[in-house]
Amino acid sequence: MRNAIRQAVDITKVSESKIGQVDFNNLNFGKVFTDHMFVCDYVNGEWQTPKIVPYGPLTLDPSARVFHYGQAVFEGMKAYKDDHGDTFLFRPDENFKRINKSSERLAMPEFPESYFFDGLNTLLELENDWIKPGFGNSLYIRPFSIATQASVSASEADEYKFMIICSPAQSYYSGDVSVLIAEEFSRSANGGIGYAKAAGNYAAQFYPTNLAKKQGYQQIIWTDADTHQYIEEAGTMNLFFRVNDTLLTAPISDRILDGVTRKSLITIAEKEGIHVDVRPIKVSEIVDAATNGSLKEIFGAGTAAVVSPIKAFGYKGEHYELTPQENSYAAHFKKALLDIQYNKVEDPFGWRVKV
Amino acid sequence: MRNAIRQAVDITKVSESKIGQVDFNNLNFGKVFTDHMFVCDYVNGEWQTPKIVPYGPLTLDPSARVFHYGQAVFEGMKAYKDDHGDTFLFRPDENFKRINKSSERLAMPEFPESYFFDGLNTLLELENDWIKPGFGNSLYIRPFSIATQASVSASEADEYKFMIICSPAQSYYSGDVSVLIAEEFSRSANGGIGYAKAAGNYAAQFYPTNLAKKQGYQQIIWTDADTHQYIEEAGTMNLFFRVNDTLLTAPISDRILDGVTRKSLITIAEKEGIHVDVRPIKVSEIVDAATNGSLKEIFGAGTAAVVSPIKAFGYKGEHYELTPQENSYAAHFKKALLDIQYNKVEDPFGWRVKV
Repeated sequence: MRNAIRQAVDITKVSESKIGQVDFNNLNFGKVFTDHMFVCDYVNGEWQTPKIVPYGPLTLDPSARVFHYGQAVFEGMKAYKDDHGDTFLFRPDENFKRINKSSERLAMPEFPESYFFDGLNTLLELENDWIKPGFGNSLYIRPFSIATQASVSASEADEYKFMIICSPAQSYYSGDVSVLIAEEFSRSANGGIGYAKAAGNYAAQFYPTNLAKKQGYQQIIWTDADTHQYIEEAGTMNLFFRVNDTLLTAPISDRILDGVTRKSLITIAEKEGIHVDVRPIKVSEIVDAATNGSLKEIFGAGTAAVVSPIKAFGYKGEHYELTPQENSYAAHFKKALLDIQYNKVEDPFGWRVKV
Repeated sequence: MRNAIRQAVDITKVSESKIGQVDFNNLNFGKVFTDHMFVCDYVNGEWQTPKIVPYGPLTLDPSARVFHYGQAVFEGMKAYKDDHGDTFLFRPDENFKRINKSSERLAMPEFPESYFFDGLNTLLELENDWIKPGFGNSLYIRPFSIATQASVSASEADEYKFMIICSPAQSYYSGDVSVLIAEEFSRSANGGIGYAKAAGNYAAQFYPTNLAKKQGYQQIIWTDADTHQYIEEAGTMNLFFRVNDTLLTAPISDRILDGVTRKSLITIAEKEGIHVDVRPIKVSEIVDAATNGSLKEIFGAGTAAVVSPIKAFGYKGEHYELTPQENSYAAHFKKALLDIQYNKVEDPFGWRVKV
């Protein structure tokens, strides 16, 4: 527990849990939610008393700003249960800081730290039975903030709702994915909001992704909007390229999300003596490396996907298959990260936080 | 009336209108809504029977996709009443086409033309008393579409809600505005969604606009994200620059909204023999023109603002004031447009559509 003294959180419990109706062996990501949710309203320039209430629908005016001007930010976190029944979060401070960074960029009010952590911890204690032990099982946690003010004037709202909802999860991706490197469409602009976890950044990706799917690719590797010559990110994942035994990843910018999994992998790699080159990555060097055989692996890193191996990529009409590696970095890092997250090993970095 | 035979629209009327409570002489833009709203749900791959129901709150699951991944598009239109009590729309086909273009880019289903126009016309007939005659008075119409599917998986939704809400309006802007030319922040990327009337495009602008406001400017003139050397648009308005007696406006691109007011002004100007130069506009040439006195006017064009004169701009720490013009193009075009919209003059372009 983070704080000795918790802020007051008004709690209204469900009369009966719906957990008995859930098949935990057949979960679709993000479809089933737990019994309760955390809600805090911003009115008259202040966050009001936070509440935990039964999970249920929101009632919003059709003119609520979120529907019209898109002020909406979110985070993705997970709670993991070890074999002793203890629950852990992974670097929750990073998510807390990032949602406020996202909020600032979207002219939304920052959320108080104590409200966030007291609300989250109280909610997770209530939902303890929803967090199943076992590798791959987790409780996906979705904090988000939306503009609720009723009026269609194009400026920032003065009323918001900050919520946390939770969904039991198994692993996110099934199997390795093939990706298409973007040549025409873009995810974000210099001086834009690409680094924010803003709702609008996601909607922009679905159409180009659908075009990629028609070519047999599941996701897009975004490139810079100016030249399409530099690798950015995959939209729901940051990217790593293993060239021989060096890992390449693009630097964070105002266009690229500062992923928690990304920075954790860099730290783990460096501790293990694997060289990580954080620098702008040209598409052409990845194509060259794929052609000459020095490109051993590509993988994505993100909370939902953890580490997601990429088996092939397409670029300018050509298809590049990667040869499966016996000692894959992706598999190694995934295990290293999960071992820390599930309290299987020591945590030399202080990332694991007990609920 | 557009169609001889209307599609079935299920209508549920209010028992009593709230119009008596509204002070039509003191309207804040977008805060008061009429008695009814148009709603149509997209479920199982189809738009269901459209409905007109009493204006009231929406009930959405907290995991509704619009809150998380930002699939939300909208339009802005106005209904104008002439002195005979007849109501007109202005180029409604353009708005209809554009919301579907926006929807396509955000991987949202297109809305059927007959549903749109039958719903809109039926709604406007019901709300006839809310449309007040007189220059500047109008009924602002906000069609919008949002992703309602309940689940936080990062892909396009399979359930949507298309709505039309209406708000009585007076003039949008009070007085001339000062604008700041963007040097760091950007509105949209090449290959992005800047041309779409997407909710996320607006949220991205509030923070930079607030910074501009601290410097005494009300709005931002966006520049290209690559170099910040070329003028784009003002976020809620397209821009026109009068240099001597020529009008300059930036060409439409995938970064710039294809504004109905913008294209109407170009047509009116060309008919009147005013030369319009539609081409990339360098910030430096506007600064030069302001310095040497050839820059006579700047104005914005948009449905909400109609024609909005800009009296000054800031760039790189310098402030440039424009000299008020006796025969201002802005005032001329505004009157020309309003005369057509309010059925004061002939409409040689066929833009006015009687409801």
